[in-house]
Formats: sequence, structure tokens, C-alpha cells
Amino acid sequence: MPVNYSAPAAPDLLPVKGVKLGSAKAHVRKPNRKDVLVIQLEPGTRVAGVFTQNRFCAAPVTLCKEHLAKNGEIRALLVNTGNANAGTGEEGMRNARKTCEALAGLLNCAPEQVLPFSTGVIMEQLPVDRVVAGLPDSIADLKEDNWLSAAETIMTTDIVAKGVSREVNIGGKDVIITGIAKGSGMIHPNMATMLGYIATDAAISQPLLEKMLKHAVNRSFNCITVDGDTSTNDALVLMATGQSEVAVAAEDGDYIKLRNAVTEVATLLAQAIVRDGEGATKFMTINVEAGRSEEECRKVGYAIAHSPLIKTAFFASDPNLGRILAAIGYAGIDDLDVNALQLYLGDVLVAENGGRAKSYEEAQGAAVMKEAEITVRVVLNRGEAQATVWTCDFSYDYVKINADYRS
Amino acid sequence: MPVNYSAPAAPDLLPVKGVKLGSAKAHVRKPNRKDVLVIQLEPGTRVAGVFTQNRFCAAPVTLCKEHLAKNGEIRALLVNTGNANAGTGEEGMRNARKTCEALAGLLNCAPEQVLPFSTGVIMEQLPVDRVVAGLPDSIADLKEDNWLSAAETIMTTDIVAKGVSREVNIGGKDVIITGIAKGSGMIHPNMATMLGYIATDAAISQPLLEKMLKHAVNRSFNCITVDGDTSTNDALVLMATGQSEVAVAAEDGDYIKLRNAVTEVATLLAQAIVRDGEGATKFMTINVEAGRSEEECRKVGYAIAHSPLIKTAFFASDPNLGRILAAIGYAGIDDLDVNALQLYLGDVLVAENGGRAKSYEEAQGAAVMKEAEITVRVVLNRGEAQATVWTCDFSYDYVKINADYRS
Repeated sequence: MPVNYSAPAAPDLLPVKGVKLGSAKAHVRKPNRKDVLVIQLEPGTRVAGVFTQNRFCAAPVTLCKEHLAKNGEIRALLVNTGNANAGTGEEGMRNARKTCEALAGLLNCAPEQVLPFSTGVIMEQLPVDRVVAGLPDSIADLKEDNWLSAAETIMTTDIVAKGVSREVNIGGKDVIITGIAKGSGMIHPNMATMLGYIATDAAISQPLLEKMLKHAVNRSFNCITVDGDTSTNDALVLMATGQSEVAVAAEDGDYIKLRNAVTEVATLLAQAIVRDGEGATKFMTINVEAGRSEEECRKVGYAIAHSPLIKTAFFASDPNLGRILAAIGYAGIDDLDVNALQLYLGDVLVAENGGRAKSYEEAQGAAVMKEAEITVRVVLNRGEAQATVWTCDFSYDYVKINADYRS
Repeated sequence: MPVNYSAPAAPDLLPVKGVKLGSAKAHVRKPNRKDVLVIQLEPGTRVAGVFTQNRFCAAPVTLCKEHLAKNGEIRALLVNTGNANAGTGEEGMRNARKTCEALAGLLNCAPEQVLPFSTGVIMEQLPVDRVVAGLPDSIADLKEDNWLSAAETIMTTDIVAKGVSREVNIGGKDVIITGIAKGSGMIHPNMATMLGYIATDAAISQPLLEKMLKHAVNRSFNCITVDGDTSTNDALVLMATGQSEVAVAAEDGDYIKLRNAVTEVATLLAQAIVRDGEGATKFMTINVEAGRSEEECRKVGYAIAHSPLIKTAFFASDPNLGRILAAIGYAGIDDLDVNALQLYLGDVLVAENGGRAKSYEEAQGAAVMKEAEITVRVVLNRGEAQATVWTCDFSYDYVKINADYRS
């Protein structure tokens, strides 16, 4: 079960004026489950996206970038699960285009006004006919209060649907931000088989929207890891419909208020993905402080978060702190003085001066390790930068889920 | 059980003239098991070592480097299991020195003529008194034909003892090379909780010995990975006693013959560690060819070898090739043209032109995946460099072993 996370109730996910969502059971891979989602956007909506850095990026990712680069108006998003349309070559590109053309025909827009997304098995051709056959049902289902249903549709190995809303008051008027996401394995920065869709009814210019998305993703989805793999299909999309009475036109206090709320929604979604990490039983926050640069703090955080030895020790509630010291040691900071740093488990100082802290007793570490939420804190004592990484432990079930995924 | 590897028989490990080995049960951590090994070297023996790159390197590693840097004659090696004396600060250094002093006193040499090695739990102080109390029994046991017993003594989570001998004829005379190693978790280049000791009775100058060791380690221990963790204690030592009638004085044909035999011994030991990888059920050889540089080939090889998603798929005998493509895509080669490469599983071409090969059928991949020894071949088609990485799969037992290790 996910660590301290359960699916939102439908009313928790507030409708965003100008965004309608509809799902259908199209049997993309498995029968009798919702697997085709259409998100329809009112004219005037601004859309920004960030995508996987994987060189083997999937056909829909390539097409999304192409369509966004045209700077036209995006009118719809099309998401299918069951098949990632990745590692599918030229045929994959043609298939992705066909799905955009089909939806554009049904919604009376141009194909380049549709953004396609796919998640699921890699290296198999997309069953275009089945996806297209599902579109009329998805369109018939389009409603503004369908966010939870949409969150369910995009799930793959996810145990729970993930979604969150925030309402902020800007200049005396309410702005809604609602987001959904999927992902539980292959979670890694820059990014992972992770899809996220966040919408607000504020109006915001394209450059500010892109800046806001970058800010949010760097503090949320780019801070999480489950197993260090980076997927071919990741995407996070931020949409601003401008259907409320609030417009954000400059980098002022209103912008920061909205940006912080969007970042909070992104962070909660990203953390929900880790909490639902494949086989996760614990949620770990790795704080690395007092480093020379954010980059070196991230290196240390990821060395800890990626170590299977550390992750299995957390699964076993074993305060095997030497493994954490070892990971700090091989994180790749050549001039690191290991005698100068402190390591904390929760609030307990466990290591300093190159070894176990004099005050530390194993019972203290064991008590912290029993918790479902654990903070590891590394104080490098060589600068003022800091970084946070969220991850989960590594259990029998991780192996089971990933050994069985395709069967 | 290890993948196609079983412990050598005692007579398989040929004595090396000038090297005596003796073990004792000293109860360093657990009772009733051999855990203190002394290797005594005849005067005139040359010794070279390579050590972990981990910034948190253990006290004995620091001391080994210090002693080797004095360029004096090394007369003995002292190895204990059960405690790694790592993350132990200044007290750890003092303890490592005490063990060297104790053995030096018993063998009538100087403390800096002893190289200390420790492996086991990190961040606990070494029980010096128990190690020292075991020395007389180890010394009483010193014999030239004790290599198998020594290989058993240095085991920790290893299932089988690891050792191999080679005999080469140089200038009409026989030279012996015998090596032992331990390690099964935290295996990674540069390196891992891996200890290796290789001895030859050839005579060789110090600079050539060091060059030979570097050559051998780069083609053996630096090509393996089990879980990507790099330990605090790794060491590989090459000893040349000069007790045979063969002397290698220049980089000539004789040197190359000896070097190749030493490299073969190192490679077989390194592969034995992977075959005995924690929970391993399969042995994988990742060959990356036609890259622009050895470094980029290694990057791709390690991206594949480190991916938990790929390792679990191999465990499940699932030809989930998309995961391999994804790993190639995130290996960090920014200008990689994914459409130009070919991916083979065994002899089967599985992917080209950015997707599944037209000729490929899943039954072919499934047949290869059923084998215990699997070769993954990536042809980058952008240069002439190549690299090989050996690794193993990721099973339930990996999690079990590492979750339970300290209990």
C-alpha cells in the first residue's frame, strides 16, 4: 500500500473552468479498464510542457514538442495507457500523428492543436484503431468535474489515483489549481514514466507560464526517484485557461502566489508518486545541506536515494548507517572532507568526525527507522547550498512487480 | 547458488613459492568461523595495490596506502572479516595501526611492513583485542598450500570461496599465478567490498608490477557491477615473490605473457564475484561496441547493468527490451542517434532503426532469456571503441540478503 497516501475523493478535485475531461474503455492492452483520456481546453488556454531527457524519447513526446513549438493554440490532450509508443521508430511517429488527426477531426481543430501522450509497454506498436475507436466515448464523457476519473484512467502500475487541488486568493478573487499524475516505477528526475497535468483558471502569458512550470518541476518532479531509471515518455503539462477573473501579467507578488500554489500541487503529486513507489513501505526525505552548490547537494542526495543497499536497509528498518556514509563517499565530490560532515537520522546525530557520533546509540537509530516517514539529513559544512530528494525503500514487492509487469 | 561457479578444490590452487597463508577463528564478529588471515611474504617480494575511490575509505585502506608509499619491503598482509573498520574516525586508524604492530612483533618486522585489510560491518570499532588474540593461531597455520583455506577465511556474504591458478611458461620455465578474492554485494568499479590477492613467483620490478596491476584491474574488477554501490574497503593486491627462476625486466613479450595471465586470473576472480552476486540467478555480459570512446561505451554498459528494471526483467526471463533501449537513451550520451544503433540479445537482432527489428519475434528473445548466461550487445555505429561490463540479475534474494545482513 502507498505510504501515507490514499486516492482523493471526487469532490476534492476542484473543476477548473475551461477544462473538460472524458475517459473511455478502449482495450488498448487490457479489456474493461479506462485507458483513453481526452482533455479538452477552451480557446485562449495557454499550455506549457516539460518532457523526458531520454534520447530514446517516445513518438508522442517528439510530437508534443513539435506541436508546442508551433506556438498555436492547444485545444486538446489525448492520453492512452497500455502502450507507450516508444522504441517504435517511424511507424510509431505515424501512429501518434494518426491519433492526433482523429481527435482533431472529432473536435473540429487542427491536428497540431492536439498533444498526444502514451504510457505503458515499450517497443510495441500502438494499436491506433483501438485508441481511435475509443475517442467518441471519451468525448461523450467530457465534463469539468471528471478529474478523479481522469486520474484513474492514466494509472498503470499505480495502486492509487493521484490528484490534488488548491484554491488561492489573488487580488480578492479565487483561482483554482488542480492537478493529476501517474507513475510509480521508473521514477527519476528529468524525468520518469510519469505523466502530470496541472491546470489553473488564471490567465497568464506564455513566457511566465513556462517559467512557472520550470520553477515547479525543479522543486517537485525533479527531486524524486524510485529506482534511478528515466523513462522514454515523461511529461508534465501546465495549462492556464484564463477563465477566471484573475490575470497574472508580470513577475509580481501575484505571480509568486500562483507559482507557489502550482509548485505545491506539483510537489504533492510528485511525492504521491514516491509514496506509491513500486513496493514502497517507507517514504524517505533526503536533505543535504551546507554544500558548495545545489548540484553537489543533489549528487549526495541521489547517491543515497539510489543505493539499493540503503533502500533495502530502510525496508528492513535496519539503521545500517555505514551504508549511508559509503554512499556519501562515492557520490563523486572529489575534495569532500568526510571528517567535516554530520549525518542525522531524523533528529538524531548519528555520525561526525568520520565515524559514529559519540552520543549515538543504536536504539535511537532503530526507533527512527521504524517510522513510515524518515528524514536523512547530511550537513556537508562547506557552503550554503542545499537540496532535497524524496525516495522510497526497496522491498520484495519491487522485484515482484517489475519481474511480473508484462505477464 | 552462484551462476556456473563452484569453489575450487584445494589442489586447484597452486602454491606460490614465497607466499605462506594461515587462518584462525578469532570471533571478530561471529563465533566458530575463520576470520583472521595472515599472508606472509618472503624477503624480496614486490607488492602493488589498488584501492577504493570512496571518500569514506576505511582506516585499513588509508594505512595500506601509507605503508606502500614508504617503498619499504612488505612482509605480511593481515585480513579480518566481520568488521570493516570503516566510518570509525581516528580511533579506527589507531586500531588498524595496533593490529599491524601486533603482527609485526610476532613476525619480527616493522609495522609499516604489514598491510592491513578489513571487511564486514561498517561504522563499528574494530575489536582489536580479538583480532590480535587470533594472530598466533594464524601464524601457526602458515603454509604455502593454504590458498583455499585463505579464500574461505575472507568470505562474508559470499556463498562460495573464490580462487584460481594459472601456470605459464616463460623462456622455458614455469611461472605460477594464484589468486583469491571475496565479494558479492556492493560490487562496482573503482571498486566494491571486494578484496583480491594475486601472487606470482616471477620477479618483476616495482614500476612494471604496478603497470601490470593497473592493466589487469581495468579489464577485470573495474568491469563488474552487482548493485552500483562502491565500498569503503576495496583492495586488490598483486605480489611478486621472485622465487622462481623467471624475471621480467622490461615491457617485452615475457611481460605481456605474464600480464595476460595475471589479467586472466583477475578476470576469472572478478567474474566469480558477479556469479556469486547477492541473489544472482543469471550472469550477464554487456558488450558495447562501435562507440566513439571507451568511456561512452562504459556509460552505456553501466546504464544497462545498473538498471533495477532491466535486472528484474532478466530475473523474470522477460525479454522486456524496451527497458534496455530506455537505459541506452538515458546513459548520458547527449548526441546519441538512437535510430543508428543495433541491439542484440545473444545472437538475435532485437532492435534497430529506433525500434523493434522487423525480423525479431518475441519467442527468439524469450529463448535467450531462459539461459543462465546472457550476452547483451549494443552496436552504437559511431566509432571504433568498445567496452564490456559483467553483471547479474536482481532477485527476491538480493533484497532478502541485504535486508537481513546485520541481523
